[in-house]
Amino acid sequence: MPFAKQHWYVAATTAEVGRKPLGRTVCGEHIVLYRREDGVAVALNDRCSHRGYPLSVGALVGDEIQCGYHGLRFDSCGTCVWAPGQERIPSRANITARPVVERGPWVWVWMGDREAADPAKLPAMAWLDDPNWVTVHGVEPLAARAGLLIDNLLDLSHETFLHAGYIGTPEVAETPFSTRVEGNVVHVNRRMEAVECPPFYSESTGLSTPIDRWQDIEYHAPGCYLLHVRVAPAGSDEGAVHVEVMYAVTPVDEHNTLDFWAVSRDFAVGDAEVDAFLERMNREVVLQDVAALSLIEARMAGAESQPEVSFKIDTGGLAARRVLADLVAVER
Amino acid sequence: MPFAKQHWYVAATTAEVGRKPLGRTVCGEHIVLYRREDGVAVALNDRCSHRGYPLSVGALVGDEIQCGYHGLRFDSCGTCVWAPGQERIPSRANITARPVVERGPWVWVWMGDREAADPAKLPAMAWLDDPNWVTVHGVEPLAARAGLLIDNLLDLSHETFLHAGYIGTPEVAETPFSTRVEGNVVHVNRRMEAVECPPFYSESTGLSTPIDRWQDIEYHAPGCYLLHVRVAPAGSDEGAVHVEVMYAVTPVDEHNTLDFWAVSRDFAVGDAEVDAFLERMNREVVLQDVAALSLIEARMAGAESQPEVSFKIDTGGLAARRVLADLVAVER
Amino acid sequence: MPFAKQHWYVAATTAEVGRKPLGRTVCGEHIVLYRREDGVAVALNDRCSHRGYPLSVGALVGDEIQCGYHGLRFDSCGTCVWAPGQERIPSRANITARPVVERGPWVWVWMGDREAADPAKLPAMAWLDDPNWVTVHGVEPLAARAGLLIDNLLDLSHETFLHAGYIGTPEVAETPFSTRVEGNVVHVNRRMEAVECPPFYSESTGLSTPIDRWQDIEYHAPGCYLLHVRVAPAGSDEGAVHVEVMYAVTPVDEHNTLDFWAVSRDFAVGDAEVDAFLERMNREVVLQDVAALSLIEARMAGAESQPEVSFKIDTGGLAARRVLADLVAVER
Repeated sequence: MPFAKQHWYVAATTAEVGRKPLGRTVCGEHIVLYRREDGVAVALNDRCSHRGYPLSVGALVGDEIQCGYHGLRFDSCGTCVWAPGQERIPSRANITARPVVERGPWVWVWMGDREAADPAKLPAMAWLDDPNWVTVHGVEPLAARAGLLIDNLLDLSHETFLHAGYIGTPEVAETPFSTRVEGNVVHVNRRMEAVECPPFYSESTGLSTPIDRWQDIEYHAPGCYLLHVRVAPAGSDEGAVHVEVMYAVTPVDEHNTLDFWAVSRDFAVGDAEVDAFLERMNREVVLQDVAALSLIEARMAGAESQPEVSFKIDTGGLAARRVLADLVAVER
Repeated sequence: MPFAKQHWYVAATTAEVGRKPLGRTVCGEHIVLYRREDGVAVALNDRCSHRGYPLSVGALVGDEIQCGYHGLRFDSCGTCVWAPGQERIPSRANITARPVVERGPWVWVWMGDREAADPAKLPAMAWLDDPNWVTVHGVEPLAARAGLLIDNLLDLSHETFLHAGYIGTPEVAETPFSTRVEGNVVHVNRRMEAVECPPFYSESTGLSTPIDRWQDIEYHAPGCYLLHVRVAPAGSDEGAVHVEVMYAVTPVDEHNTLDFWAVSRDFAVGDAEVDAFLERMNREVVLQDVAALSLIEARMAGAESQPEVSFKIDTGGLAARRVLADLVAVER
Repeated sequence: MPFAKQHWYVAATTAEVGRKPLGRTVCGEHIVLYRREDGVAVALNDRCSHRGYPLSVGALVGDEIQCGYHGLRFDSCGTCVWAPGQERIPSRANITARPVVERGPWVWVWMGDREAADPAKLPAMAWLDDPNWVTVHGVEPLAARAGLLIDNLLDLSHETFLHAGYIGTPEVAETPFSTRVEGNVVHVNRRMEAVECPPFYSESTGLSTPIDRWQDIEYHAPGCYLLHVRVAPAGSDEGAVHVEVMYAVTPVDEHNTLDFWAVSRDFAVGDAEVDAFLERMNREVVLQDVAALSLIEARMAGAESQPEVSFKIDTGGLAARRVLADLVAVER
């Protein structure tokens, strides 16, 4: 499946982008990220127009990036401003610069036509700017196509089995949920009442079984997934806390993905132990997904077609597949 | 070349199959093996019908196997008996169960149509049930197509060069042999008289040069090879001993094979030193074959066609190739 | 691109070829190299005509090479002289022998029609036989197509950036050069006057900035590159020294190359410290090229076509590409 390109994708964490060029591949395109001296993040095509050397192994000279092979220099707009022994440089030596926006812990790059880039197309994530919230985050490479991760995130019944002891309890798989599609957003809502409190929440909040636990998924196709979580003592509003679990699903190529994740919360803000606990727990959950999805990808590599049987639990995932396919079809 | 599937293939040693699921690939098919609580061995398709996760990384729940991703459970007949949040499970969620039979040190799986499975199709291997015989065995992965191992086993002249110091002596390559085909069985018979006794036999039997040494091959295409060996003091019946060298040649895919081997004998039964000696010797011989055949496979991978020159020594191997090709053709 | 085969290619250093068979792949052809008992180097097809086993893992028996699998023996002309159990060996069991010539530190093999092999087709390299000169040399495997190394060697402007601190100074990239093609030889001449002396020359010769530095490239397509270097105190003939930098570019396959290099000089002959210094320096320069070209090759593997922009600095490289393409076209 080709990629939907007229969209923002997370290419890196803000901390990964600095004065040392960073090479990344997004939707099959090689890009190099760096910061200008004024701190502004830049994304250029990671390929010197001369002989194809990756610019990401080159060096910054002020706001320009210099190719490590023959020294060609490009400014932050992608204009080739110097080549050895050359007075006039043709404009076809320029390279593509991509729109960049920073939001929360992430650097988002627009992979489509420049004129269509609009930061307002990002979903609202108000908690990222709210001082009463705090966020931990990370990124893991995934040796599987992005679609497998989207399947995974839209059907949380797998928490019960793959993530038992972390976020999974028997009730996640058993509780019915509702699904609805609005434009390119898929909503999946599951309300669990008076259920077991898994370690992820019990150890971070101090709450104990039974709890009410809400999972409200908002998947903004193609690459942004928000899980609004409310946990509270069963039957009570008092003591309710909120967690926003975010995933930025960035296709690297047809068989690889970057799995950016972030966990924001409105409790225990300033508590470094809870920071460390949730960071470690969510990373382990992500690594469980990475291990499982890599196995499925490996099997898909060797097979022509993949027969599947879908169940009620797949309603959200199947809706997400249709939305994604439509986004790709629209671009053709 | 496609595989002949209407046959028994060794998928594992009996000890490998237990209460921890074992994933194996036979003739390109992924299968998972385990034992029910009553000890009966089970072989199922190693792929959850839901989203394709390997069942072999799941867990046993009684006699059922539970998928590690979303918890679907399958009984030992392959029937899907549980899925999360699902009351009625459609029959297309069931997976294939394959007939299994245990014989000697091995678990054989029938890769063809269930109704045609018949343990009587296995060759007679009476020594496996005879208390006057004892068997050592092992298995090695081979990064080469099965056909290269069958070529190898049908032309023992290579013992002289590849296995010198183990089972090879000059006379193996020099002594003429007869070949005959009966159905899907290829017989190759070589009778060496008053020849050198190689270490494999001299150290295990105490016999010394000269010996009479008989090699009677019975290759049951596609996957079972029996080498009936008689060694005795030259010109004498007294002191004759017998060895049955068995190979189960199991194609994994078009470029990989499992090389199961077993050595049975009717002497020094109960002698652990001879057990250890023959196990070590034969494993080293197998590893010499594995190294050589992997080199040939690597060369074949890079070439369109492989010109060959065949000699008298190849009579058995060429017959085996014809029988194998016929078995595949019959299935089309 | 297919290979130009009616040419000499360096297959090994003279020291690599001895009484232990050496397997090499040149222009996609597997060859085995060894020395007869009288020291003459031999190159045969590295594939037993029987079942395709590499002869390079076999053993020498006098001047013959014996296959390690079934013991077939071939003489140094490629004639099959023995096979197990076989009285008459058909001539189609013979394998190809390739013409070999040794020159300087290298064993050259003719990859074309035997009757066209002529050592006189090698370029003159008189310094290799001159006792007033001395040579250091080495070989590195390069995971990139040969064309990328030829591009690299024909455009020395990259020395300024990729090899700064070794042989690169700002003036190499800045100084214009002339280019001329004669038959299958591309000449590129750059004369730098009163320029910086890089460590490679300052530490080996004792010369200090400013120097006159001449780079006269003679690329004999497809596989032999000579760089005639003269360095001298600026404006003076006294104290001028000469270096011959040679590269033998040997395609292994479409994506791999052997990068043979040699550095000859007419000064400090007999000075082991200068030997060691130049050997280490040039090896590091070669490894810088290897690292860079491997990155470009990896990028080419994933892309259909490679847009390029060429500059004045590419005049020599583009000429070399045309000459190479003509050599291949002529052979069709």
